[in-house]
Amino acid sequence: MYNLDEIGKRAVEAKYALQTFTSVKKNEALKAVAKAFLAREQEMLEANRKDLEIGKKNGIPEGLLDRLELNYERIAAMAEGLEQVAELTDPLGEVLESFSRPNGLQITKLRVPFGVVGIIYESRPNVTADAFGLCFKTGNAVILKGGKDAINSNIAITNIIRDALAKEGIAEDAIQLITDTDRSVTNEFMKMNKYVDVLIPRGGAGLIRTVVENSTIPVIETGTGNCHIYIDEDADIMKVVPIVMNAKTQRIGVCNACESLVVHEKIINLVLPAIGKALAEKNVEIRGDESVKNILSDCVEATEEDYGMEYLDYIISIKTVASIDEAIEHINRYTTRHSDAIITENDEHARMFLDKIDSACVYVNASTRFTDGFEFGFGAEIGISTQKLHARGPMGLKELTTYKYNIVGNGQIRP
Amino acid sequence: MYNLDEIGKRAVEAKYALQTFTSVKKNEALKAVAKAFLAREQEMLEANRKDLEIGKKNGIPEGLLDRLELNYERIAAMAEGLEQVAELTDPLGEVLESFSRPNGLQITKLRVPFGVVGIIYESRPNVTADAFGLCFKTGNAVILKGGKDAINSNIAITNIIRDALAKEGIAEDAIQLITDTDRSVTNEFMKMNKYVDVLIPRGGAGLIRTVVENSTIPVIETGTGNCHIYIDEDADIMKVVPIVMNAKTQRIGVCNACESLVVHEKIINLVLPAIGKALAEKNVEIRGDESVKNILSDCVEATEEDYGMEYLDYIISIKTVASIDEAIEHINRYTTRHSDAIITENDEHARMFLDKIDSACVYVNASTRFTDGFEFGFGAEIGISTQKLHARGPMGLKELTTYKYNIVGNGQIRP
Repeated sequence: MYNLDEIGKRAVEAKYALQTFTSVKKNEALKAVAKAFLAREQEMLEANRKDLEIGKKNGIPEGLLDRLELNYERIAAMAEGLEQVAELTDPLGEVLESFSRPNGLQITKLRVPFGVVGIIYESRPNVTADAFGLCFKTGNAVILKGGKDAINSNIAITNIIRDALAKEGIAEDAIQLITDTDRSVTNEFMKMNKYVDVLIPRGGAGLIRTVVENSTIPVIETGTGNCHIYIDEDADIMKVVPIVMNAKTQRIGVCNACESLVVHEKIINLVLPAIGKALAEKNVEIRGDESVKNILSDCVEATEEDYGMEYLDYIISIKTVASIDEAIEHINRYTTRHSDAIITENDEHARMFLDKIDSACVYVNASTRFTDGFEFGFGAEIGISTQKLHARGPMGLKELTTYKYNIVGNGQIRP
Repeated sequence: MYNLDEIGKRAVEAKYALQTFTSVKKNEALKAVAKAFLAREQEMLEANRKDLEIGKKNGIPEGLLDRLELNYERIAAMAEGLEQVAELTDPLGEVLESFSRPNGLQITKLRVPFGVVGIIYESRPNVTADAFGLCFKTGNAVILKGGKDAINSNIAITNIIRDALAKEGIAEDAIQLITDTDRSVTNEFMKMNKYVDVLIPRGGAGLIRTVVENSTIPVIETGTGNCHIYIDEDADIMKVVPIVMNAKTQRIGVCNACESLVVHEKIINLVLPAIGKALAEKNVEIRGDESVKNILSDCVEATEEDYGMEYLDYIISIKTVASIDEAIEHINRYTTRHSDAIITENDEHARMFLDKIDSACVYVNASTRFTDGFEFGFGAEIGISTQKLHARGPMGLKELTTYKYNIVGNGQIRP
């Protein structure tokens, strides 16, 4: 049997060991790992070649093979990523609040690491380096469980990181990889509450659902985005096509891409022909209601299911509404609470939309594609939270920390 | 079949309706509910009498019957509790951060309600009023699932609250009670991610474990406290007995009570006789290791299991250590990460303890009994979180909220 318990214990030991290092020391280690990536890239590429060969033999789809592939450029990007994380401000030790009570107790609320973070992801080997960098910077030991298809690449990357840490005199168990990719091991991992403080799934909707349904460890749900753009009756029509096209087609397979348009019936004749033409040029299939079909002859009838879909593809749904209230109601029903936008020049409508849409990021006159840790200026991103517990929207370094209370007295007892 | 789906939908409607009320209006409603409690106390007492009769017939233990019982005093306390919550500052709408990006996007991070909070609790009917007050104040609709033994009391309390809300012109579905206490209904409730944003279990370790293991909704784990006091070699012996006795015996059945002492071997002869005598006077059973048994003849041999126990009873475990490092290691192994304390006059030891103990509240020279929302000055408490996600330690009003990002642009698209 695979010894997950041993992995858990080691991670806990590493979490305590990590407390003893200064920011400077941790940043040096991150840079040393980046150097090691470049120095040992052949090893990584060789391991990756094995994964690619097996993948091809098993007939995994082209897109997946692309995500799985490492090359000089991608390895350089991984190294560069760690260098950048090293440059960011260390969020640890920040005093969030400090106050004294009438009885003289001095209470300090301060930012500390979670401790042990678990990450379950699919077959992008760069996530291995990326997740390590963010967790390490924030003082967390990390246990990684990557996709089966990337196992050789992940082992190579993890070994390089562990060797570099050891050379720097840092507990190499700051990163551990679960190398048994059997589903039963993953299931057991998701119940390691004794050792793991937080579990973060990174990947598609299926992976996230599995983790949410099976984990007993607190989970941060990330990533599913059925993002809407509502074109209000008072929209500036010059803004409509650029925002819609950017949000829908700039990158198709990402969670902050737009999947659904909601259009006010008063403006539909004005804006839809131009939107339809621009979408057609990019070969985006349109699924809409009767009013949309009347204007765009190629439009397919949208089903109830369409409005709830995160296509991640060249497809978009369009819904006509008679009022902003109807738009808000529709969006709140179908959104995955990731990012939704309104295009309007009407301040009151903008205010209503901002107040009433129950999503992590609500936009006025901008593309939903900005929901991103880097675009928000966080300098890093571990994912986009679509739940309300702990963190919402883009998660940077701070979101990988928690807090504790230190209370200093001189003999106080409770009356 | 019990229609949980309908309850979920109504809660979501109520959550949007609650957004439309000002703080003043919500506070008036809280006061109106408090008045209604006093005006309709006979109705509550009658319902409670039914619960008590059934409870006695079913032979539920004395302690549980006590917790189940309502009387004039307890109803007055429930009303008073709501009045107090009405007086607290409304945490909603607080701007947590506001910044603009180089591209001109204006990003505002602001405090908002969770939306729909689920609370699963045992047989203390006052939790019904209490949980409603805190959730309502923070703009959350609440779905309650109380213990079977208190069902008649809970129905009465909920009806009184709903009537008072309706009279105030506020969506009465701001509070809903699940009246089918069948386990299968509870199980279904714990999987209502579609409607419920956060689930908070309030009760004993068994209830909390059940919720953590079965819920797919994000859970805030509360309450289990295996709290330690470490008596350092440099402790001021005048502080030892008062702190230990306060933490262990001031209230036995609470999560912030001390369950285990850790004593440095150099000071054990000095402090243990006095501790033993004081504990014996309160009939506290001592379970300790060899060194403890050598000093206290009544001491029972402590097992491995003892060190991990939350007794909630007149029992305490005592462990001898040879160093502060050993003390920290022992506590970090057995603590439930609720509250742990050191008694010492040595600043370096105090610092080490504060830094290294991985618990929500870490004390120097004070009783663990202070881990409490009121003692921290929060003015309210929904529970003590022992997990690291979202909130740690005492949870007040702020901890019943989340945040969202509002982003205002003028046509920005992502390059």
